[in-house]
Amino acid sequence: MKILVIGAAGMVGRKLVTALLSAGTLGGRAISAITLADVVAPAAPGGAIPCPLVAADLSVEGVAAALVADRPDLIFHLAAIVSGEAEADFEKGYRINLDGTRQLLEAVRLAGQRAPYCPRLVFTSSIAVFGEPLPALIGDHHEHTPLTSYGTQKAICELLLADYSRRGFVDGIGIRLPTIAVRPGKPNKAASGFFSGIIREPLVGLEAVLPVADTVRHWFASPRAAAGFLLHAATLDTAKLGHQRNLSMPGLAVTVGEQIAALERVAGPQAVALIRLIPDPVIAGIVAGWPKAFAATRARALGFKGDTSFEEIIQIHIADELGGRIGGQHTSM
Amino acid sequence: MKILVIGAAGMVGRKLVTALLSAGTLGGRAISAITLADVVAPAAPGGAIPCPLVAADLSVEGVAAALVADRPDLIFHLAAIVSGEAEADFEKGYRINLDGTRQLLEAVRLAGQRAPYCPRLVFTSSIAVFGEPLPALIGDHHEHTPLTSYGTQKAICELLLADYSRRGFVDGIGIRLPTIAVRPGKPNKAASGFFSGIIREPLVGLEAVLPVADTVRHWFASPRAAAGFLLHAATLDTAKLGHQRNLSMPGLAVTVGEQIAALERVAGPQAVALIRLIPDPVIAGIVAGWPKAFAATRARALGFKGDTSFEEIIQIHIADELGGRIGGQHTSM
Repeated sequence: MKILVIGAAGMVGRKLVTALLSAGTLGGRAISAITLADVVAPAAPGGAIPCPLVAADLSVEGVAAALVADRPDLIFHLAAIVSGEAEADFEKGYRINLDGTRQLLEAVRLAGQRAPYCPRLVFTSSIAVFGEPLPALIGDHHEHTPLTSYGTQKAICELLLADYSRRGFVDGIGIRLPTIAVRPGKPNKAASGFFSGIIREPLVGLEAVLPVADTVRHWFASPRAAAGFLLHAATLDTAKLGHQRNLSMPGLAVTVGEQIAALERVAGPQAVALIRLIPDPVIAGIVAGWPKAFAATRARALGFKGDTSFEEIIQIHIADELGGRIGGQHTSM
Repeated sequence: MKILVIGAAGMVGRKLVTALLSAGTLGGRAISAITLADVVAPAAPGGAIPCPLVAADLSVEGVAAALVADRPDLIFHLAAIVSGEAEADFEKGYRINLDGTRQLLEAVRLAGQRAPYCPRLVFTSSIAVFGEPLPALIGDHHEHTPLTSYGTQKAICELLLADYSRRGFVDGIGIRLPTIAVRPGKPNKAASGFFSGIIREPLVGLEAVLPVADTVRHWFASPRAAAGFLLHAATLDTAKLGHQRNLSMPGLAVTVGEQIAALERVAGPQAVALIRLIPDPVIAGIVAGWPKAFAATRARALGFKGDTSFEEIIQIHIADELGGRIGGQHTSM
């Protein structure tokens, strides 16, 4: 089977491609090629499976048609500009996050007009589709009242995905990813950055700033679990979805205090001592409006599996990003 | 104040313009002009207030910018192709119902970049944004899972309207109209046509076909109430809406049996005798998936007023469309 990954250079995209190449098959079918597309050329992953690299902007006329010209059996669409940038640059957010997705859907539909074609399309949506008022536990039928342009764009793409699927133009499934933790890499300015930073930095002996109270609760998945959601979505029997093609994934609801307790169990009090509480009312205000937990009943019933504890999430980071070592010591995972 | 009505040639558009011209003012401000735009040139209404007529397709590049070039204080956007046509012609539906609305929002935003401009925009949405699963009474926070491309397009426009309003580009309010009854004019092929037909035809001595059981329940507003919703939305304090800019209107939930009983009270058993029950399983199946009743708690609290009885709805039709006469007889309204 031929696979197209759009947004292959991003963090989740790289995890997904690594998992696909490592498996070599998907749903019992051998993977013959994975086209890796992103706005900047993705790194060549190496290995036996051909991975053509494409650097292109999905929102540019003709790009989507070129990407589906060889009729991939399966498309992962992960490309998006992030929440902060979509809020700062209104036009760019709509162009990439809405028009890009719509051009992809149109390219698939028009290819199907020339000869039958209805590929599985796995789309990464976001819990940013939800806004106020938010209950403590968000059910599978909660309304979408996004409070950002990014969330609006994702909510619109979910509607398009469902309608194009209902019409038989594509076999779509939208996956609302939880906040990814532990996110590898450098600290960044994202309001959510500290959720990963307070784990990632102490594990390598660096200080990290905690800008909110340890009672703050949020919704997480490890990068490994996120890639797992996408792989499961790729082979799921979509007849079970009916016309409701978009799903909140089973993340893990934990408080910052529970994150820190898990860190202490994994890496000891000396790691926790590196976390400095410096309250930031702006960040606390932003985070207060975010979802805290989801029921994710449908996704669980459909076989999606999240992380089981925040300790496991930390161990996944140590295994996948730190070569199994904390400050030079091997751990048991 | 200058007003722009897009979709002015449609039934609700004509009722709205008549009401505006008859009042001459809105929210205490004199109306200086009403531009009437539609894809076909609206009829000139006459009267003292200038009403420039524009025949143009909102989805064509440059049309929206031309329509807002003289910076109307208030815009009513009612233009849409209907559910059946949007389902039959996928591309046309998205072009008119989605791209047309988006071009209007963009034209307003870009005008605001040249000089401050943030007009009130009253947008007609639809109860078609709701799909399965549907409770007997739909609350104000029910999810949008449309089962038609038309409903998808309206749901997307609601999201855009809310985001453009949140960003301060427009002062938007979306009005989910109930099914309009009694719809004047000839019988048509719409699946909902019989809801009006079983009243409209007998009132002028013609037979009408009822394709469903009289236990079927649905959600109605008279044309007069619909125009009233739009006028109220035009002057409402939108600060009270928060970021939730779209509202289900207070319609009237009645069964077909209650419709017929009201007809009998207004026009006697000889009118009811003109209704022929010819069950149509296809229409019955379509109608079974439609909303039956809404709480409309927010809209009522904000001062929107619906019809009080189906008898009143029939009397409005007789007064506004039949010159107060049933089969040549004057009625009391």
